[in-house]
Amino acid sequence: MNVLVINCGSSSLKYQLINAASEAVLASGICERIGIEGGKLVHKLPSGEKITIEEHMDDHMTATKLVLDTLTNENHGVIKSLSEIGAVGHRLVHGGEKFSGSTLITDEVIKAVEECNDLAPLHNPANLIGIEACKKLMPNVPMVGVFDTAFHQTMPRKAFLYGIPYEYYQKYKVRRYGFHGTSHSYVSKRVVDVCGLDKNNSKVIVCHLGNGASISAVKNGESIDTSMGLTPLEGLLMGTRCGDIDPAIIEFIAHKENLSIDEIMDILNKKSGMLGVSNLSSDSRDLEDAAAEGNEDAKRTIEVYNYRIAKYIGSYITALNGVDAIAFTAGVGENNPDLRTEVCSYLEFLGVKIDQEKNKIRGKEVIISTDDSKVKICVIPTNEELAIARETVAIVNK
Amino acid sequence: MNVLVINCGSSSLKYQLINAASEAVLASGICERIGIEGGKLVHKLPSGEKITIEEHMDDHMTATKLVLDTLTNENHGVIKSLSEIGAVGHRLVHGGEKFSGSTLITDEVIKAVEECNDLAPLHNPANLIGIEACKKLMPNVPMVGVFDTAFHQTMPRKAFLYGIPYEYYQKYKVRRYGFHGTSHSYVSKRVVDVCGLDKNNSKVIVCHLGNGASISAVKNGESIDTSMGLTPLEGLLMGTRCGDIDPAIIEFIAHKENLSIDEIMDILNKKSGMLGVSNLSSDSRDLEDAAAEGNEDAKRTIEVYNYRIAKYIGSYITALNGVDAIAFTAGVGENNPDLRTEVCSYLEFLGVKIDQEKNKIRGKEVIISTDDSKVKICVIPTNEELAIARETVAIVNK
Repeated sequence: MNVLVINCGSSSLKYQLINAASEAVLASGICERIGIEGGKLVHKLPSGEKITIEEHMDDHMTATKLVLDTLTNENHGVIKSLSEIGAVGHRLVHGGEKFSGSTLITDEVIKAVEECNDLAPLHNPANLIGIEACKKLMPNVPMVGVFDTAFHQTMPRKAFLYGIPYEYYQKYKVRRYGFHGTSHSYVSKRVVDVCGLDKNNSKVIVCHLGNGASISAVKNGESIDTSMGLTPLEGLLMGTRCGDIDPAIIEFIAHKENLSIDEIMDILNKKSGMLGVSNLSSDSRDLEDAAAEGNEDAKRTIEVYNYRIAKYIGSYITALNGVDAIAFTAGVGENNPDLRTEVCSYLEFLGVKIDQEKNKIRGKEVIISTDDSKVKICVIPTNEELAIARETVAIVNK
Repeated sequence: MNVLVINCGSSSLKYQLINAASEAVLASGICERIGIEGGKLVHKLPSGEKITIEEHMDDHMTATKLVLDTLTNENHGVIKSLSEIGAVGHRLVHGGEKFSGSTLITDEVIKAVEECNDLAPLHNPANLIGIEACKKLMPNVPMVGVFDTAFHQTMPRKAFLYGIPYEYYQKYKVRRYGFHGTSHSYVSKRVVDVCGLDKNNSKVIVCHLGNGASISAVKNGESIDTSMGLTPLEGLLMGTRCGDIDPAIIEFIAHKENLSIDEIMDILNKKSGMLGVSNLSSDSRDLEDAAAEGNEDAKRTIEVYNYRIAKYIGSYITALNGVDAIAFTAGVGENNPDLRTEVCSYLEFLGVKIDQEKNKIRGKEVIISTDDSKVKICVIPTNEELAIARETVAIVNK
């Protein structure tokens, strides 16, 4: 069966067509600037060939149609007809407390996702538009929703409750949800295999470090804590998001700069993190390069970034009462040996030792700790699309 | 020499008269409702005797005068004349980045403290009024300022910088300062003595758990990180303060409840924490009692409270790259054996073992871990007034 994986943003649509049996990616691509002037679709083939189609897309319906036309196009298509698509897997951002796993999309599910809209006002409505478009264009193809929050629904209340009046949880479901769940789930399972652990007796920490970044503590295969919260703003330093701050900073800056809450939230989401601290770039590669040339702004930012990761690892080791393996994943985690070395240097007290030769490897599944390290440290490239395709097949075949 | 220790709040004034040689408390007390109807002074003698004087106090000047009159009163006074007060030690809340230690109070110092007022708009002005009052009533007695923030000024930038635009640090000095510094300093020094550590090669974590609560990581006698931040709102769950939250919660609740930033900050400072989560009480003793009777609201709150402490301890163990000793202090930390047991249960992976007999002790300096515990766990009653008196004598004699 071929599975079409769809990830809709407010003005974009990413897709991958994956053969479920071989797990090969048949094609992938992205529609950008949907509903905006200058729209285009970039379609990638396994050969490396890229086809760019510049075409205005009124809405996600038009974009989805363009994707399906491209996939079945006789020149650069990879399937002959839509009947070769056996299922669609949708990445959905926020399932609130309603969804603790992936689910076949029905009218009831769509309604339940809509009810979570105010927890993710930017993402959930876009996700739903993608579902509607596929439903109209491929009415007989089963669709599965895979939630970014679902994996973390196993967190106990001591981890998900905030220190705010309990009525806000009761009335509005204000609590920690966590995100990147598909990645944390996929990577934590791979860690168990790669490190030869007993899943039912395992303590794993996954550091998903991309432009967005989050850490999770996974005990016996279940998430027991994670650094993102009600929204993806909390936790680690990220590309442009602040992560943890004293909440009183919002009031302080609002008064000093005469800004509204919404204006400050915009700064904390889009102008903070690595970009804000460095005043240089939100991209860790740029900061590594600048730091190597002695740039103090970059050095300072990397120090803060790494230290925050190390502290979260420490807090999750305590939450787990020990740790068997720690994994680094996503763009920064997979490709930054210096970061891995520095973060692990905080863990020497646990008997963590890094093999610097193995640690040079980028973007491959590899154990980078020495054979006598007391905790296994590994790099596990994440693959959210493949994880969504697997979940989709599992649900459809259930 | 006798040292008068003064701690001025916005409508209160606490005092202790301490003999520096014997470190005996000659008298202590509090003026309440200064400038408000129903003012009174409660004066305590070492015998346990309490004298309550109901008297309206216009301002801190009147209150200070009443304290000095009471201390020299022929019936319940403890000194014959003000000449027996050799120095005054003032607890000052916020010294910004200007003060990394205690200091003799001069006109320049008063000006520098004033410049920190917008970092602590409720506390610093009250502290300064206390200084002015003593200056007028005892013009020839040397005064020393002991800052709540000073001990944490040794934090490296990776610990004190937030993930926000760097210009806010440059323009407004928005950074982590930390508080309870006098207590963290005093207790961490006692830990070194009580546990027989080498101060210059020591890794100590101090859990100051009172109505306000903070944790610090102290390496070789210097604070390298602490949980309170720009203000005392950040970090642990406290009596009524929320501690760490997703900053986006402020925006979410503001919109849902139609509240201003200031109104939300008021909720986060005064109606959150243990009070908010439990909807019962801000006092951990009430919650322990209710939990013992099976109250779920209390149980939930205690879970969140203890778990947050354990996670901070973990993050600081990583920050220190190990730990030699962990101390519990202040009202909750000194008097709650169950809390200490539960928090330490998260640290079994480190070889932490509690001696339950020793752990029954409340409010005394005692090592509560077993002899074979890999990390020493102890209870150290804090004594901020004594610490202020010692600092004062040290500065005056310099």
